[in-house]
Amino acid sequence: MERILIQQVKEKVGKEIKIAGWIHTIRDQGSIKFILIRDITGIIQAVVTKDNAEAAKIVGSLSLESVVEIIGLVKSEKQAPGGVEIAIKKIKILSLSSSELPMPVVEKASNETELQKRLDWRWIDLRKPEKVLIFKVWTAMEQAFRDYWTSNGYVEIHSPKFMSVPSESGAELFEVKYFDRKAYLAQSPQFYKQMAMAAGFEKVFEVGPVFRANPSFTSRHDTEFTGYDMEISFIESHQDVMSEEQNLLAYVLEKIKKDFGEDISEIYNRNLIIPKIPFPQITMREAKAILAKLKIPSEKDGDLTPEEERELSNYIKQKENHEFVFVTDYPIETRPFYHMRLENNQKLTKSFDLLWNGLEITTGAQREHRYDILISQAKEKGLKLKSIQFYLDFFKYGCPPHGGLGLGPTRMLMQIFNIGNVREVTYLYRGVKRLTP
Amino acid sequence: MERILIQQVKEKVGKEIKIAGWIHTIRDQGSIKFILIRDITGIIQAVVTKDNAEAAKIVGSLSLESVVEIIGLVKSEKQAPGGVEIAIKKIKILSLSSSELPMPVVEKASNETELQKRLDWRWIDLRKPEKVLIFKVWTAMEQAFRDYWTSNGYVEIHSPKFMSVPSESGAELFEVKYFDRKAYLAQSPQFYKQMAMAAGFEKVFEVGPVFRANPSFTSRHDTEFTGYDMEISFIESHQDVMSEEQNLLAYVLEKIKKDFGEDISEIYNRNLIIPKIPFPQITMREAKAILAKLKIPSEKDGDLTPEEERELSNYIKQKENHEFVFVTDYPIETRPFYHMRLENNQKLTKSFDLLWNGLEITTGAQREHRYDILISQAKEKGLKLKSIQFYLDFFKYGCPPHGGLGLGPTRMLMQIFNIGNVREVTYLYRGVKRLTP
Repeated sequence: MERILIQQVKEKVGKEIKIAGWIHTIRDQGSIKFILIRDITGIIQAVVTKDNAEAAKIVGSLSLESVVEIIGLVKSEKQAPGGVEIAIKKIKILSLSSSELPMPVVEKASNETELQKRLDWRWIDLRKPEKVLIFKVWTAMEQAFRDYWTSNGYVEIHSPKFMSVPSESGAELFEVKYFDRKAYLAQSPQFYKQMAMAAGFEKVFEVGPVFRANPSFTSRHDTEFTGYDMEISFIESHQDVMSEEQNLLAYVLEKIKKDFGEDISEIYNRNLIIPKIPFPQITMREAKAILAKLKIPSEKDGDLTPEEERELSNYIKQKENHEFVFVTDYPIETRPFYHMRLENNQKLTKSFDLLWNGLEITTGAQREHRYDILISQAKEKGLKLKSIQFYLDFFKYGCPPHGGLGLGPTRMLMQIFNIGNVREVTYLYRGVKRLTP
Repeated sequence: MERILIQQVKEKVGKEIKIAGWIHTIRDQGSIKFILIRDITGIIQAVVTKDNAEAAKIVGSLSLESVVEIIGLVKSEKQAPGGVEIAIKKIKILSLSSSELPMPVVEKASNETELQKRLDWRWIDLRKPEKVLIFKVWTAMEQAFRDYWTSNGYVEIHSPKFMSVPSESGAELFEVKYFDRKAYLAQSPQFYKQMAMAAGFEKVFEVGPVFRANPSFTSRHDTEFTGYDMEISFIESHQDVMSEEQNLLAYVLEKIKKDFGEDISEIYNRNLIIPKIPFPQITMREAKAILAKLKIPSEKDGDLTPEEERELSNYIKQKENHEFVFVTDYPIETRPFYHMRLENNQKLTKSFDLLWNGLEITTGAQREHRYDILISQAKEKGLKLKSIQFYLDFFKYGCPPHGGLGLGPTRMLMQIFNIGNVREVTYLYRGVKRLTP
């Protein structure tokens, strides 16, 4: 007999079926024993009486979280969760759990103070249906991103993570022993997605890990995380990149809402809204003026603190009824050397961040593709040209105007589920003090 | 005016259009000048006469591989490649290439002796339409894999690349300076896809980089490459994993043949065959017996050399008219401690490799999910239990029977295109001596 999934059981009333899964709860009343079985699709009640001595004995020996296979008859039962239960004919233990679980699977609220313990036993924590949901949504979200990209002519790249020099500033860089020399782990695929533009790929995307030796312990930071990156050629300005991003995000969120909107609303009490196009946008200068009026303390001229991001998003939400806002025209001091500058103001870059409900989820820009200007901007930032000559060479033999963005899927998920900590939406979090499990 | 792609030009005869791309060739006959323009979708001829003095002057100043934007009239022209050409009205240089290209883009055969030079200038090498095709096919191939996975209920994971201990044997391991201690780069997501089975995800896949400090210089090896990994629960044996893989590969190859079969056949002279199901399979013992009869020298008892793989594939191809063959039942000596053993022969594992036209593209197995047996197998292999205790713990609190496989997309592409060197199908190859560009 083929195993069926628990979500299919309710259609099989009156039939004999086989299921398999984890022992979620046990209620042993002696002559009658109830168990809840859990698989990836749901939870169902199974029952055995003393008439079936062999099965009753096995059920009596079970520990919570053991894995079993059950053959039984599906019956309507008003008192059972979901209205059906399985009368056990045969039960087989596939894996007996130790009777002392380090932490329970059945619990309503996840206590933040227990976070370290839950991360230590991550695979048990992930058994909770509300946790699995995060990764089902991630799967659907990533597929939606890729559907958009592949149906719009993008080429996928897998760029190398080993580099001979830093890909970004040189700060927060991981060093690798590489045979008889040193290598560095890529902090972003920035240089290599731009190389694809010089190679004539025109539109590319990459999904992969990025590594940042960030010593901070905030709820938004980790030492490695998944990055979504895209880059497109033959643009007029960064506005073309922003326009592509808003189409992409509206497509993705519509897809997620359609397939998981109800679950997300029910379990996380978050009503997903498909954003209207165009997204609001303001310049950094305008943003700072608004924040000054709101009396929000500013730490830095050309950048926003987490508090400023939240307040700015609140302001836009009230004023424009929109969860997203593009902040543009960052000054050159807060942007890397390769961001293109505005024609009418050489102190400002053709760059943007995208905030979603107060959290920065994207950084993007038009890149400087003109070799001579790029060199002078690199010099201005004090970079050693020799170390980045391989990158500068990309622009010497014909390279179209281009721009792109990087987006953090875990930050997307934090906003989709209204979860405040990146550790909760990462499969296995890595931080300064955490390399296990 | 919106730019159109070169493949769309032939439908626009009699109309004014805008295109953009790279200068592929220039033929300057003084009063009349012909250029070929190349974009991601194709190549087209454009022409300008001395009557359009301004445009003629710009065309006269062009170097090969410069990037231009052209507005012009589409005309039928028998002598032009593809039967149409563009009469240039306006031409604008978007990026002027240095007149001294380090290597030509227009060339028929890629000389193997020039490989290092081509890798040095990879983005110029990749401009050749036959090279771009490889990455268009990769994009479609990966999307097909993911379509299969997501439509069959798989959950995607992004497992960490930083580990506190080796994920495999401990040989060929990259060491990272990780704040005040050491970390290691994952040689495979093996442990973490098994963790997903313990977490109840049931079916998972992962696409991501794997790192191997392999000091060899063969045409099949690199220090980092993209891996496709999958793992499924509630299996009866490794045969369930093999069965899933053959369905998956038949689906993927059908998709590739449909969308790219003609291009691959035309440019690479390779006729893609959609494999019949079931794939042939033989045990390692049978394979060795066949190879002995064929007088192929054997270096090792329980494993195949590249020469043996080729000869075995040839044999199967002649006998069964099939490009694929599963080799099963590897002895415990040549498999890791976590491979499950055959019930009727404890010296053999429930494992397999998949060969495609003489190249190993997959290794897979049923895993040992029974805690006590796993420990005794680890001890037998001489492993220090303490260092892998975090992994052993996955099996202590209920873990279903499961198995999976790892597959190399670059090895797939080598066989799809009949290309002998992994460097050619990798976006940017990394080896012992190569960390740039």
